[in-house]
Amino acid sequence: MARVVVDVMLKPEILDPQGQAVQRALPRLGFDGISDVRQGKRFELEVEGPVDEAALARIRELAETFLANTVIEDFDVRVEETAEEVAP
Amino acid sequence: MARVVVDVMLKPEILDPQGQAVQRALPRLGFDGISDVRQGKRFELEVEGPVDEAALARIRELAETFLANTVIEDFDVRVEETAEEVAP
Repeated sequence: MARVVVDVMLKPEILDPQGQAVQRALPRLGFDGISDVRQGKRFELEVEGPVDEAALARIRELAETFLANTVIEDFDVRVEETAEEVAP
Repeated sequence: MARVVVDVMLKPEILDPQGQAVQRALPRLGFDGISDVRQGKRFELEVEGPVDEAALARIRELAETFLANTVIEDFDVRVEETAEEVAP
Protein backbone atom coordinates (compact mmCIF):
# COMPACT_ATOMS: atom_id res chain seq x y z
CA MET A 1 0.00 0.00 0.00
CA ALA A 2 1.39 3.35 -1.01
CA ARG A 3 0.09 6.87 -0.92
CA VAL A 4 0.14 8.83 -4.14
CA VAL A 5 -0.55 12.56 -3.97
CA VAL A 6 -2.10 14.48 -6.83
CA ASP A 7 -1.89 18.27 -6.54
CA VAL A 8 -4.24 20.22 -8.78
CA MET A 9 -3.65 23.97 -9.11
CA LEU A 10 -5.11 26.58 -11.42
CA LYS A 11 -2.69 27.47 -14.21
CA PRO A 12 -0.65 30.61 -13.44
CA GLU A 13 -2.49 32.63 -16.11
CA ILE A 14 -5.93 31.78 -14.68
CA LEU A 15 -7.41 34.18 -12.14
CA ASP A 16 -7.76 32.62 -8.69
CA PRO A 17 -10.43 34.51 -6.72
CA GLN A 18 -10.21 32.14 -3.72
CA GLY A 19 -6.49 32.72 -3.39
CA GLN A 20 -6.93 36.46 -3.88
CA ALA A 21 -9.54 36.58 -1.13
CA VAL A 22 -7.11 34.87 1.25
CA GLN A 23 -4.23 37.14 0.23
CA ARG A 24 -6.27 40.31 0.73
CA ALA A 25 -7.48 39.20 4.13
CA LEU A 26 -3.97 38.54 5.48
CA PRO A 27 -2.86 42.16 6.25
CA ARG A 28 -6.15 42.75 8.07
CA LEU A 29 -5.37 39.72 10.19
CA GLY A 30 -1.86 40.93 10.96
CA PHE A 31 0.12 38.83 8.47
CA ASP A 32 2.31 40.90 6.18
CA GLY A 33 4.94 39.96 3.62
CA ILE A 34 2.90 37.50 1.57
CA SER A 35 2.67 38.76 -1.99
CA ASP A 36 0.50 36.07 -3.55
CA VAL A 37 -1.69 33.15 -2.55
CA ARG A 38 -2.99 30.42 -4.85
CA GLN A 39 -5.50 27.85 -3.64
CA GLY A 40 -5.82 24.43 -5.18
CA LYS A 41 -6.76 20.86 -4.43
CA ARG A 42 -4.78 17.98 -2.99
CA PHE A 43 -5.89 14.37 -3.48
CA GLU A 44 -4.38 11.55 -1.45
CA LEU A 45 -4.87 8.17 -3.15
CA GLU A 46 -4.19 4.93 -1.28
CA VAL A 47 -2.97 2.56 -3.97
CA GLU A 48 -3.09 -1.22 -3.55
CA GLY A 49 -0.08 -3.13 -4.79
CA PRO A 50 3.21 -1.79 -6.05
CA VAL A 51 3.43 1.75 -7.40
CA ASP A 52 5.54 1.08 -10.46
CA GLU A 53 5.76 3.12 -13.65
CA ALA A 54 2.62 1.44 -15.05
CA ALA A 55 0.60 2.31 -11.94
CA LEU A 56 1.86 5.89 -12.00
CA ALA A 57 0.98 6.18 -15.68
CA ARG A 58 -2.57 5.05 -14.90
CA ILE A 59 -2.81 7.56 -12.04
CA ARG A 60 -1.54 10.34 -14.33
CA GLU A 61 -4.26 9.38 -16.82
CA LEU A 62 -6.81 9.41 -13.98
CA ALA A 63 -5.64 12.84 -12.83
CA GLU A 64 -5.72 14.21 -16.35
CA THR A 65 -9.17 12.88 -17.24
CA PHE A 66 -10.94 13.07 -13.92
CA LEU A 67 -9.26 15.01 -11.11
CA ALA A 68 -8.05 18.03 -13.07
CA ASN A 69 -9.61 20.18 -15.75
CA THR A 70 -6.51 20.55 -17.89
CA VAL A 71 -7.96 23.49 -19.77
CA ILE A 72 -7.51 25.65 -16.68
CA GLU A 73 -5.58 23.46 -14.21
CA ASP A 74 -2.13 21.89 -13.92
CA PHE A 75 -1.55 18.74 -11.92
CA ASP A 76 1.40 17.01 -10.31
CA VAL A 77 1.54 13.32 -9.34
CA ARG A 78 4.06 11.99 -6.81
CA VAL A 79 4.50 9.05 -4.46
CA GLU A 80 4.46 10.33 -0.91
CA GLU A 81 5.04 7.24 1.20
CA THR A 82 5.37 3.55 0.53
CA ALA A 83 4.53 1.10 3.28
CA GLU A 84 6.74 -1.53 1.62
CA GLU A 85 9.79 0.64 2.17
CA VAL A 86 9.09 0.91 5.89
CA ALA A 87 8.43 -2.80 6.41
CA PRO A 88 11.49 -5.04 6.79
CA MET B 1 11.02 35.28 -2.65
CA ALA B 2 10.14 31.76 -1.61
CA ARG B 3 7.12 29.56 -2.02
CA VAL B 4 5.65 28.04 1.12
CA VAL B 5 3.03 25.33 0.70
CA VAL B 6 0.31 24.71 3.26
CA ASP B 7 -1.59 21.44 2.86
CA VAL B 8 -4.90 21.23 4.70
CA MET B 9 -6.54 17.80 4.95
CA LEU B 10 -9.50 16.54 6.94
CA LYS B 11 -8.35 14.56 10.00
CA PRO B 12 -8.34 10.78 9.38
CA GLU B 13 -11.32 10.24 11.70
CA ILE B 14 -13.48 12.81 9.87
CA LEU B 15 -15.71 11.53 7.07
CA ASP B 16 -14.67 12.89 3.66
CA PRO B 17 -17.66 12.76 1.29
CA GLN B 18 -15.78 14.47 -1.56
CA GLY B 19 -13.00 11.91 -1.42
CA GLN B 20 -15.51 9.06 -1.16
CA ALA B 21 -17.36 10.31 -4.22
CA VAL B 22 -14.11 10.28 -6.19
CA GLN B 23 -13.15 6.83 -4.89
CA ARG B 24 -16.53 5.31 -5.79
CA ALA B 25 -16.44 6.78 -9.26
CA LEU B 26 -13.04 5.31 -10.12
CA PRO B 27 -14.05 1.67 -10.88
CA ARG B 28 -16.84 2.94 -13.13
CA LEU B 29 -14.22 4.92 -15.03
CA GLY B 30 -11.93 1.93 -15.36
CA PHE B 31 -9.46 2.69 -12.57
CA ASP B 32 -9.12 -0.17 -10.08
CA GLY B 33 -6.77 -0.75 -7.18
CA ILE B 34 -7.34 2.51 -5.31
CA SER B 35 -8.67 1.73 -1.87
CA ASP B 36 -9.16 5.24 -0.51
CA VAL B 37 -9.21 8.84 -1.66
CA ARG B 38 -9.04 11.92 0.55
CA GLN B 39 -9.53 15.39 -0.86
CA GLY B 40 -8.06 18.46 0.75
CA LYS B 41 -6.76 21.93 0.02
CA ARG B 42 -3.34 23.14 -1.04
CA PHE B 43 -2.30 26.77 -0.54
CA GLU B 44 0.78 28.21 -2.24
CA LEU B 45 2.04 31.34 -0.49
CA GLU B 46 4.66 33.58 -2.13
CA VAL B 47 6.63 34.96 0.78
CA GLU B 48 8.67 38.16 0.52
CA GLY B 49 12.04 38.11 2.22
CA PRO B 50 13.84 35.21 3.83
CA VAL B 51 11.88 32.22 5.06
CA ASP B 52 13.58 31.71 8.40
CA GLU B 53 12.20 30.03 11.50
CA ALA B 54 10.38 33.23 12.55
CA ALA B 55 8.64 33.51 9.17
CA LEU B 56 7.69 29.83 9.25
CA ALA B 57 6.32 30.22 12.77
CA ARG B 58 4.14 33.10 11.57
CA ILE B 59 2.91 31.05 8.62
CA ARG B 60 2.12 28.13 10.93
CA GLU B 61 0.09 30.53 13.09
CA LEU B 62 -1.65 31.83 9.95
CA ALA B 63 -2.45 28.28 8.83
CA GLU B 64 -3.74 27.33 12.25
CA THR B 65 -5.94 30.38 12.74
CA PHE B 66 -7.07 31.08 9.22
CA LEU B 67 -6.41 28.43 6.56
CA ALA B 68 -7.36 25.33 8.54
CA ASN B 69 -10.17 24.53 10.91
CA THR B 70 -8.11 22.57 13.41
CA VAL B 71 -11.19 21.01 14.99
CA ILE B 72 -11.62 18.84 11.89
CA GLU B 73 -8.51 19.49 9.78
CA ASP B 74 -4.77 18.87 10.00
CA PHE B 75 -2.27 21.06 8.20
CA ASP B 76 1.31 20.80 7.07
CA VAL B 77 3.62 23.75 6.27
CA ARG B 78 6.75 23.34 4.14
CA VAL B 79 9.05 25.44 2.00
CA GLU B 80 8.78 24.26 -1.59
CA GLU B 81 11.27 26.42 -3.43
CA THR B 82 13.52 29.32 -2.53
CA ALA B 83 14.61 31.70 -5.25
CA GLU B 84 17.57 32.77 -3.10
CA GLU B 85 19.03 29.27 -3.24
CA VAL B 86 18.93 29.24 -7.04
CA ALA B 87 20.48 32.70 -7.48
CA PRO B 88 24.28 32.94 -7.14
